[in-house]
Amino acid sequence: MIEEYTVGDDRELDMRLARYDVEGSLAHIAMLETIGLLTAEELEKLTAGLKEIAAEIEAGRFEIEPGTEDVHSQVELMLTRRLGDAGKKIHSGRSRNDQVLVDLKLFLRDELRQVADAVKRVFDRLQEQSEKYKEVLMPGYTHLQIAMPSSFGLWFGAYAETLADDMRLVAAAWHIANQNPLGSAAGYGSSFPLDRTMTTRLMGFEELHYNVVAAQMSRGKSERAAAAAIAAVAATIGRLAMDVCLFMSQNFGFVSLPDELTTGSSIMPHKKNPDVFEIMRGRCNRLQSVPNEIALLTTNLPVGYHRDLQLLKDILFPATTEIKRTLAMCDFMLAHIRVNEHILDDKKYDYLFTVEDVNRMVLAGTPFREAYKQVGMAVQRGEYTPTREVRHTHEGSIGNLCTAQIRRKMERVMQEFE
Amino acid sequence: MIEEYTVGDDRELDMRLARYDVEGSLAHIAMLETIGLLTAEELEKLTAGLKEIAAEIEAGRFEIEPGTEDVHSQVELMLTRRLGDAGKKIHSGRSRNDQVLVDLKLFLRDELRQVADAVKRVFDRLQEQSEKYKEVLMPGYTHLQIAMPSSFGLWFGAYAETLADDMRLVAAAWHIANQNPLGSAAGYGSSFPLDRTMTTRLMGFEELHYNVVAAQMSRGKSERAAAAAIAAVAATIGRLAMDVCLFMSQNFGFVSLPDELTTGSSIMPHKKNPDVFEIMRGRCNRLQSVPNEIALLTTNLPVGYHRDLQLLKDILFPATTEIKRTLAMCDFMLAHIRVNEHILDDKKYDYLFTVEDVNRMVLAGTPFREAYKQVGMAVQRGEYTPTREVRHTHEGSIGNLCTAQIRRKMERVMQEFE
Amino acid sequence: MIEEYTVGDDRELDMRLARYDVEGSLAHIAMLETIGLLTAEELEKLTAGLKEIAAEIEAGRFEIEPGTEDVHSQVELMLTRRLGDAGKKIHSGRSRNDQVLVDLKLFLRDELRQVADAVKRVFDRLQEQSEKYKEVLMPGYTHLQIAMPSSFGLWFGAYAETLADDMRLVAAAWHIANQNPLGSAAGYGSSFPLDRTMTTRLMGFEELHYNVVAAQMSRGKSERAAAAAIAAVAATIGRLAMDVCLFMSQNFGFVSLPDELTTGSSIMPHKKNPDVFEIMRGRCNRLQSVPNEIALLTTNLPVGYHRDLQLLKDILFPATTEIKRTLAMCDFMLAHIRVNEHILDDKKYDYLFTVEDVNRMVLAGTPFREAYKQVGMAVQRGEYTPTREVRHTHEGSIGNLCTAQIRRKMERVMQEFE
Amino acid sequence: MIEEYTVGDDRELDMRLARYDVEGSLAHIAMLETIGLLTAEELEKLTAGLKEIAAEIEAGRFEIEPGTEDVHSQVELMLTRRLGDAGKKIHSGRSRNDQVLVDLKLFLRDELRQVADAVKRVFDRLQEQSEKYKEVLMPGYTHLQIAMPSSFGLWFGAYAETLADDMRLVAAAWHIANQNPLGSAAGYGSSFPLDRTMTTRLMGFEELHYNVVAAQMSRGKSERAAAAAIAAVAATIGRLAMDVCLFMSQNFGFVSLPDELTTGSSIMPHKKNPDVFEIMRGRCNRLQSVPNEIALLTTNLPVGYHRDLQLLKDILFPATTEIKRTLAMCDFMLAHIRVNEHILDDKKYDYLFTVEDVNRMVLAGTPFREAYKQVGMAVQRGEYTPTREVRHTHEGSIGNLCTAQIRRKMERVMQEFE
Repeated sequence: MIEEYTVGDDRELDMRLARYDVEGSLAHIAMLETIGLLTAEELEKLTAGLKEIAAEIEAGRFEIEPGTEDVHSQVELMLTRRLGDAGKKIHSGRSRNDQVLVDLKLFLRDELRQVADAVKRVFDRLQEQSEKYKEVLMPGYTHLQIAMPSSFGLWFGAYAETLADDMRLVAAAWHIANQNPLGSAAGYGSSFPLDRTMTTRLMGFEELHYNVVAAQMSRGKSERAAAAAIAAVAATIGRLAMDVCLFMSQNFGFVSLPDELTTGSSIMPHKKNPDVFEIMRGRCNRLQSVPNEIALLTTNLPVGYHRDLQLLKDILFPATTEIKRTLAMCDFMLAHIRVNEHILDDKKYDYLFTVEDVNRMVLAGTPFREAYKQVGMAVQRGEYTPTREVRHTHEGSIGNLCTAQIRRKMERVMQEFE
Repeated sequence: MIEEYTVGDDRELDMRLARYDVEGSLAHIAMLETIGLLTAEELEKLTAGLKEIAAEIEAGRFEIEPGTEDVHSQVELMLTRRLGDAGKKIHSGRSRNDQVLVDLKLFLRDELRQVADAVKRVFDRLQEQSEKYKEVLMPGYTHLQIAMPSSFGLWFGAYAETLADDMRLVAAAWHIANQNPLGSAAGYGSSFPLDRTMTTRLMGFEELHYNVVAAQMSRGKSERAAAAAIAAVAATIGRLAMDVCLFMSQNFGFVSLPDELTTGSSIMPHKKNPDVFEIMRGRCNRLQSVPNEIALLTTNLPVGYHRDLQLLKDILFPATTEIKRTLAMCDFMLAHIRVNEHILDDKKYDYLFTVEDVNRMVLAGTPFREAYKQVGMAVQRGEYTPTREVRHTHEGSIGNLCTAQIRRKMERVMQEFE
Repeated sequence: MIEEYTVGDDRELDMRLARYDVEGSLAHIAMLETIGLLTAEELEKLTAGLKEIAAEIEAGRFEIEPGTEDVHSQVELMLTRRLGDAGKKIHSGRSRNDQVLVDLKLFLRDELRQVADAVKRVFDRLQEQSEKYKEVLMPGYTHLQIAMPSSFGLWFGAYAETLADDMRLVAAAWHIANQNPLGSAAGYGSSFPLDRTMTTRLMGFEELHYNVVAAQMSRGKSERAAAAAIAAVAATIGRLAMDVCLFMSQNFGFVSLPDELTTGSSIMPHKKNPDVFEIMRGRCNRLQSVPNEIALLTTNLPVGYHRDLQLLKDILFPATTEIKRTLAMCDFMLAHIRVNEHILDDKKYDYLFTVEDVNRMVLAGTPFREAYKQVGMAVQRGEYTPTREVRHTHEGSIGNLCTAQIRRKMERVMQEFE
Repeated sequence: MIEEYTVGDDRELDMRLARYDVEGSLAHIAMLETIGLLTAEELEKLTAGLKEIAAEIEAGRFEIEPGTEDVHSQVELMLTRRLGDAGKKIHSGRSRNDQVLVDLKLFLRDELRQVADAVKRVFDRLQEQSEKYKEVLMPGYTHLQIAMPSSFGLWFGAYAETLADDMRLVAAAWHIANQNPLGSAAGYGSSFPLDRTMTTRLMGFEELHYNVVAAQMSRGKSERAAAAAIAAVAATIGRLAMDVCLFMSQNFGFVSLPDELTTGSSIMPHKKNPDVFEIMRGRCNRLQSVPNEIALLTTNLPVGYHRDLQLLKDILFPATTEIKRTLAMCDFMLAHIRVNEHILDDKKYDYLFTVEDVNRMVLAGTPFREAYKQVGMAVQRGEYTPTREVRHTHEGSIGNLCTAQIRRKMERVMQEFE
């Protein structure tokens, strides 16, 4: 009962760490040999053994046996079975905390890179749709009131540029994860003369997480930075999904989806429900709660490892999976979204053009307050007829989307991952 | 009643935006002149008028009059009083949304820079104390159990390096804020031929927030990125404060404070309470709730401005003040903290050295499992006597703190602000 | 600097506690006299002195002087000035923690009762509007898709009944607050033979908070229960506000407000923005973050008082004010809301009636799947013509709102406050 | 891909609803017969069919087949296979939303009752330990500083009484869940003449959720009330776990656990780690995040069903399981906890008695300020010798735990569930 309670789903979660665990061990033993804690022969045997396990992991043949506590013990167990006592030597100069920290950093680094790529694909799709529909006007709202002309070029393009901002946080979280904790042992270092610079290089970390207490303390901090980045992306995608759900309402009718991507009703024969976007919105909103969940788990814990931190895996592992599949789904759905090209034919959108008409009068010499009053009175008398012509030309406006510049902005942030 | 309800503390909050509002208007009118919407003479008069107001703001003589809605209206009102109708022209090609966005970005950019500087000062102090006390050992805990030897060098230094990680998020938030939204008008751009590249340059923004819908949508997103960065710093300082409160307990007695920095009790004559660190911990924990508060405020709001966003000022403005003064207080307190140099004399800390002794046996040839068993049995029989010698030499360990390398890591992140 | 940092806005917040502090002291001294720690004469003098202070508080003439730490010290100071050393005797057998706990319980009890009354007023208004507009149909949505006929009777009435559910939590929080902590001293009781049952009676508490450690530990718990109740009410009002903002959009046009209760735009002459409801929604969403803020402040603090708890006042005091004025504003706005009586004339709402028509066929003998298919095909061929007649008669449906039963449900919960 | 994305783990979660789904259907068809929508014969056949399915569910033989969307469809499918077209008739006058609402209310009602029982068991255990160790003194802390004498009687008893407060919220959530939504259909009621009072009685609901829009809107609200109650309990248990972890530290040594309930270290032979309490604390802190997660999911969704709400099951179902097993584990561990009966022999705890000594002098006639000064100076000169005698006699203090009164308080709240 106690084991079930303390271990929970940990074994299953650890399966995602298996390949990183082997990667960390390979670096560790290579280093142990250079400082004389392994012979060249032992290193060779252990390296071969670990590579065999790595191959089994890639092939899906690895599993954590019942009775074995975690992935680290499983790898050691397999090595010992195959190589005898030499197998135990991979543990020299390391502790379990050390190993899990290394695994998590490698995992986070990989996952965040994948998140970045998935964000980039949605970004590309949004820019593609923005360019495709750049001539199609739609109403712009403020306070949910009809305000000024907008366009699908602007709408799709806005979400693209917003993702470039979110990418800043993904990159920051990636840098934070991309530091080598190996050698921190139980959080206070080791009396073995470990060469941490060497393992940093071997695992391709950007930097050493120097101070061993800091390396230990990064548990929870790295996860939270990752969660904040994921939450930022989720907030953007969630808002996009909200827009789509609203715009698919018959009261808007701005966009639609092929029938096979909507859901009907068991009692209403006319319904085309945007279930995918609703679930997307819901999943994104759940993801927004993750940084806070981590904060609650870690707040006021004094320095040093506590077993509570194990539960970070339960929180973050599903979150990275969720954001990746949500982004993939978003990309797929955006590829199939259909745009109503005749929205503005509806008379209720005439008011969109009042500002245009005021501005036109201003450019022609009427003072602003006077122009505003004239148009306002025409509106009140019900006599307002819009010119229905939109000539926005400045950077980032309907007629000048700056798609290429925004792409360059995104690419500059993406370069941080190289 | 309605005005009180909708405006709330907004006027007071707006006072912090006054200087940025003038800065934005100066850039805007300079640009308006180049596109022919102001004459050179008007520009000159308006510029002089705005600079006069700027001087009044710096001198503390500016106020938002009762009956005036916000800082933008107040500035326009003052200009109009002094310059007549020309004063109104600063509003051409802008909306209130536009102005508040510009003000907020300039504000955030400045505040985040100040936060970064305040973090850096605490970082410096921590490194200074880390070096000063690098020889003083203390117990390292895992699971709140006595574990292995640590040192004040490690402990202070760990918080320093952790702040370097947090700085990544401060820098990311600063980049996100450092983009020019001017020209987005009500969130859908303008039919005036605005030159947004010019205003970007004039206000020293790193980049243009191109897409006008994205610029508008950044409201809430920029604040949340800032809040996530502040929360990361707060989490670090909050944990440090927790450690100090625990270490000041008579059950630890690791650190102490001069009497004048502690608080007594009205009924217990022996108490020396660490109130400052408790309040610091509490304030840091409140700051950790800010990103979530912003998420709740903005979640599921469809694209386009909503008045709800005004409340972001109520959330974020106090938060930037709070983190800055918390960091200043932390710096001050750390400068006065006293370290107990004889902690390990207490026999209960003997167990710290078991790993050392196991490792020593391993280096001398005993297999790990055997060494572990021998030491473990000595412990159980109550016969364990530690060697009490710590020879940790690898990077980031007690004997090799890597203070200079950690400083370089911090400095590399700080360079992003240039 | 330290005092400013640790005390913060505490003096200002304490002003709201002044009357409760005097109330608690009056009970305390009456009890002290019965156990022989005050003479009858001292009691008389102190009682008169406290009543004088109480009168000054009611008259708005009380203030916490600079240099005086809190409301408790201020009251003691005033008594001592007026009565000499006898004034100090009110402190016997109490500690500061004790006093603030009593004050907070009395405060919470009062505030929650006021919140309940404010909720009840909005409930009454909603029921009134529900009855007034019970004949006016509106579209019901699922997935934001037009679904089935609803009515303003249902819509207003739904929010009323939901508030009755929320009231359960308000009542629970009120019970939790309504327990006497006096006598807990610093959280470990007192060696004086205090009569806590007597003070419970004198202050009208429902119950004694017996265990003194529990009484101390209730700090943070009582506030959080109150915050959860406030958040539940806020969630209901926030959703109502969201509905109104959406329904006021020209794309719905279901409700409207008199011009003086909307806001115009500085650049769009046709706008009628629902700013009050947007600010209401925003304030409600901020209130929903309060329980989490308290959780973050208090999580993982071991048993016993910590100074962090002082900050609970900064969190909860504004929250009770905010919910009360938000409810008052909601009541006011609902009284002025106008309902569009001809919404369903618009042909796009024809589909609302498909289920009705299917059901009508079923009641007339056609199997459900067959009826569903026939109506579905009529919809697809564009030949569907609705019967536009709604005969919902069961409990809680359009034709049978059960207003009286819902009122009784609310009243039953309200009785808990007696 | 879309189905996987939208359905997620929903089928698995639905398994927990199966028995409630059948219970709801049994009530529904009994009612349908009374209003003439089923014949007596159909009712008999359907009732028998449903009872057969109920038996299969209890026997663990029920499953949701691949390709079947949810539990509701599965039950209908099984009935139709066995009874032909009559099976479909259970759907008359209901919608899927209706069914899931009924299932969830029945589920919540049951789960909350189970949570209440589990809380009560921990309460009983705490009271038992409180009585058992009522003579054993321990130090009481404020600000984590040694403050005044406390006892294990007080400490265990405090958590018991606190659970009685939490139970108020569990009861409130139970009442909120215990209302019949059946008949709300898709959230707007039905044109069938349903008898909702009858189904309320048949399912044993305390009350009818009258207004059909309110019944629908309760989705998310009921869950959040349940989550707030669970979070309150979790906060109490989490703090208890924090205390235990701290008190097991060698720096306190107040409590211990049998070896088999602690965990050792792979590298430190002397460690006895309180992993169970750490995991308990972590799980409790995660549970505290659930109300906020629900808030984020539901905030700003306009009235009416949205598919997002399906994800509430993913949030709440694990939470009810988690709190129940956490309470069971807490009960088990508390039964095995060992108390150090000689804590106060340590000289550092002498200061605990300063207040006692001051009070003793006061009772003997010395003015408080004078007594405080004398004892304070003795402390400063290192000459303070405590009397080490504790005579606390008032209600709820060390010598008068009021265990029976606290038990009655708890029992009064428990009566609400009857």
